[in-house]
Amino acid sequence: MITKRLELKDIIRYISNELKQIYGSPDKLFVDNIADAANTNDNTLDWINPAKVNKQEIAESSKAKVMLVDSSVVFSKELQTLKKVLLVVDDPKSTIIKIINRFFVENPKAHIDKSAFIHPNAIIGENVYIGPNCYIGDCVIGDNNIIHSNVCIYDRTKIGNNNVIHSGAIICVDGLGCIRNVDGSLTEFPQLGGVIIGNNTYIGGNTHIASGSLSDTIIDNGCKINGMCFIGSNNHLCENVWITGSTMLAGSVTVGKNSTIFSKVVVRDWCQIGENVTIGMGSVVTKNVPSGETWVGNPAKKYEKQ
Amino acid sequence: MITKRLELKDIIRYISNELKQIYGSPDKLFVDNIADAANTNDNTLDWINPAKVNKQEIAESSKAKVMLVDSSVVFSKELQTLKKVLLVVDDPKSTIIKIINRFFVENPKAHIDKSAFIHPNAIIGENVYIGPNCYIGDCVIGDNNIIHSNVCIYDRTKIGNNNVIHSGAIICVDGLGCIRNVDGSLTEFPQLGGVIIGNNTYIGGNTHIASGSLSDTIIDNGCKINGMCFIGSNNHLCENVWITGSTMLAGSVTVGKNSTIFSKVVVRDWCQIGENVTIGMGSVVTKNVPSGETWVGNPAKKYEKQ
Amino acid sequence: MITKRLELKDIIRYISNELKQIYGSPDKLFVDNIADAANTNDNTLDWINPAKVNKQEIAESSKAKVMLVDSSVVFSKELQTLKKVLLVVDDPKSTIIKIINRFFVENPKAHIDKSAFIHPNAIIGENVYIGPNCYIGDCVIGDNNIIHSNVCIYDRTKIGNNNVIHSGAIICVDGLGCIRNVDGSLTEFPQLGGVIIGNNTYIGGNTHIASGSLSDTIIDNGCKINGMCFIGSNNHLCENVWITGSTMLAGSVTVGKNSTIFSKVVVRDWCQIGENVTIGMGSVVTKNVPSGETWVGNPAKKYEKQ
Repeated sequence: MITKRLELKDIIRYISNELKQIYGSPDKLFVDNIADAANTNDNTLDWINPAKVNKQEIAESSKAKVMLVDSSVVFSKELQTLKKVLLVVDDPKSTIIKIINRFFVENPKAHIDKSAFIHPNAIIGENVYIGPNCYIGDCVIGDNNIIHSNVCIYDRTKIGNNNVIHSGAIICVDGLGCIRNVDGSLTEFPQLGGVIIGNNTYIGGNTHIASGSLSDTIIDNGCKINGMCFIGSNNHLCENVWITGSTMLAGSVTVGKNSTIFSKVVVRDWCQIGENVTIGMGSVVTKNVPSGETWVGNPAKKYEKQ
Repeated sequence: MITKRLELKDIIRYISNELKQIYGSPDKLFVDNIADAANTNDNTLDWINPAKVNKQEIAESSKAKVMLVDSSVVFSKELQTLKKVLLVVDDPKSTIIKIINRFFVENPKAHIDKSAFIHPNAIIGENVYIGPNCYIGDCVIGDNNIIHSNVCIYDRTKIGNNNVIHSGAIICVDGLGCIRNVDGSLTEFPQLGGVIIGNNTYIGGNTHIASGSLSDTIIDNGCKINGMCFIGSNNHLCENVWITGSTMLAGSVTVGKNSTIFSKVVVRDWCQIGENVTIGMGSVVTKNVPSGETWVGNPAKKYEKQ
Repeated sequence: MITKRLELKDIIRYISNELKQIYGSPDKLFVDNIADAANTNDNTLDWINPAKVNKQEIAESSKAKVMLVDSSVVFSKELQTLKKVLLVVDDPKSTIIKIINRFFVENPKAHIDKSAFIHPNAIIGENVYIGPNCYIGDCVIGDNNIIHSNVCIYDRTKIGNNNVIHSGAIICVDGLGCIRNVDGSLTEFPQLGGVIIGNNTYIGGNTHIASGSLSDTIIDNGCKINGMCFIGSNNHLCENVWITGSTMLAGSVTVGKNSTIFSKVVVRDWCQIGENVTIGMGSVVTKNVPSGETWVGNPAKKYEKQ
């Protein structure tokens, strides 16, 4: 776990726009970690998830001296006696993310490792990190991208800006579409399409994104695809699609914007999944899913709350 | 997407053996792309899939000037008025594949990248491409193979001719067979077997093929295995088995020739799958599957058309 | 398959502590392979699995001259006539493993390949093999580890001793936890946690182990995780957990010691799986599983023998 000694006053200055109130005395305090509930100690900068029901109780039992809370947490006698410090903000979760990103996270610096293979015709934007042992084919990569080690990007890929691609991901690998001949042998349909990835996406480790067959596979802005996924040929993932890991979308699947597909799902060729859809983990989706619905099961069906 | 300006007369010359009839005037025409239905334009070389029912309608609404069709498509008044050109062949799909392979697809040239690790005892045939950052152990690789970047092939692998292995595939990684001891600890059974791959196979990106335990894992000629698959120890895939992605065959599974296993399937240890079998996506196969049958579901059962 | 000529007397000397009895004449005999049932020949060192019911019959029909058996196999007239040699031990399976490991298996020698990227702050123990094209971040790696080619280990990983990590595995890749904002966009929760791996583990090829989010992902001693698995953020796998391949554990899952999770399983976020649990292949686990139980299905339920 990353730990780092920070003066509390520096944090307070950084979040001054969000900060509505300070209870207790922040003077000379410091924090050195942001742990989950199970590992909180004296020097943790703790935060109470606004989604919890028993926030007051959580705050009063935390071992941390300093807590980010929303205004529903009261600076009770108990908290006063324990000499706690409450930093009150509207949304502790987004504020803690801001603090972590500012003070704790260190992204790799722009750099192309000398062991990476870069195709002579590849066009690479500004402020890009390409880690060791990558393969970058004849493709276009925009600005501010982080491409971790051992990523393979085949020819015919276009990647926008501000993306993170994790180790072992392979992008624009030839899709496999076969014709079963009369004698049982298989003819592969040749693949000419590419992969187009927008901005602000996350492509997980060891994830496989197939090239389009004749046109392109498209991943729009803001999509987050966790590791071990298979994104098939000619898929079109619209904005802000979230896929949580080990999921497989067969060929020519479309997923509407803001939809969430949980883990270990498989979606049949040509299925159209609408906007704001949720697909439960382990589902086998064999039909189109209308916008706004939640589907689960094998085969997947609409889930109705009971 | 790959685009390329081609004179129509060159294409006509190349397919002269298949060509049964030309309607309209091909003079001075060119094409520059082969797009799917959604992206067709003036210069597309379009083709009407013989499997479609409304071929005439598709032809008459295509934006492309030039179309490959079978003889059931008529050179109607409408097509004449629009000054279309029809190239009539028996099987537009196989002819378009031939054209794409000849004029559009560029395979990597024979070359062993200097960043690839090649075991000193490895035997590598003629006309082989081995991409950057590969690991090639003490194994035998035949002729005309394309091994994309970042593939790992452990010792004890024998690969025939004309195979394509995509990035991130790992072949002959030690299988994991454990014995649970009385105290709960696990002893791994040591692995001595290899992997034998025939000719004309496709091994997808990030696919994992385990070594045999004592004898070998065998993948026969013409098998096509898409990405993210797990092929277990001592599997034997007979000729022309097609696996469409993210599927897992546990240890000692046999699959008869010409069978198709769709995506995200899991097959239990020791199951015997017959010839000409189809396993539907997402299935959990726990029993032997007789030849010629289609099985689906969790647990998988024989599927009877209703 | 590995073959190697060995004098039988050398094997007998090596297993002298286990050996209870020799039937037949071992003089001047040699063996050169340890094959499975289907490939046994004259020179195979065969062994009869104590778990089989028809051991006598197996022994009498084996083509091998020399067999490791337990004392329930009798040196029958038939075996005498065939001039077989029986080496009687208490547990032929553990003895054959011992013999294979001693005489047949060759592990890679300690060596760090020059094409591997090693972070300048990485601490690497004694007798470690790191294969070509690996990426080793700012982490701590103990003694006697074998890290095959093209493995990526991000910063914040601590690995104990005597582990084997197979090609394409990626360890401590940032987990992906998203918050869906009101406008549909996704904010990633930054990841500060690490991965802690104990001793004597097996991490399979192309397996993905996510970093913890705020605290660490933990894999205790003796865990064996086959290939193509996804181990999510903040998982805690206790001692001797066995996962057989292509399985996915979502975030914050705990698995008690000595549990076995078969292939292609998915386990929901936060599920607690007890000790000595078995989860059947293809299961979708959505609830906590008490110790000692077997669960199967989608959704998984307790399996009662009928």
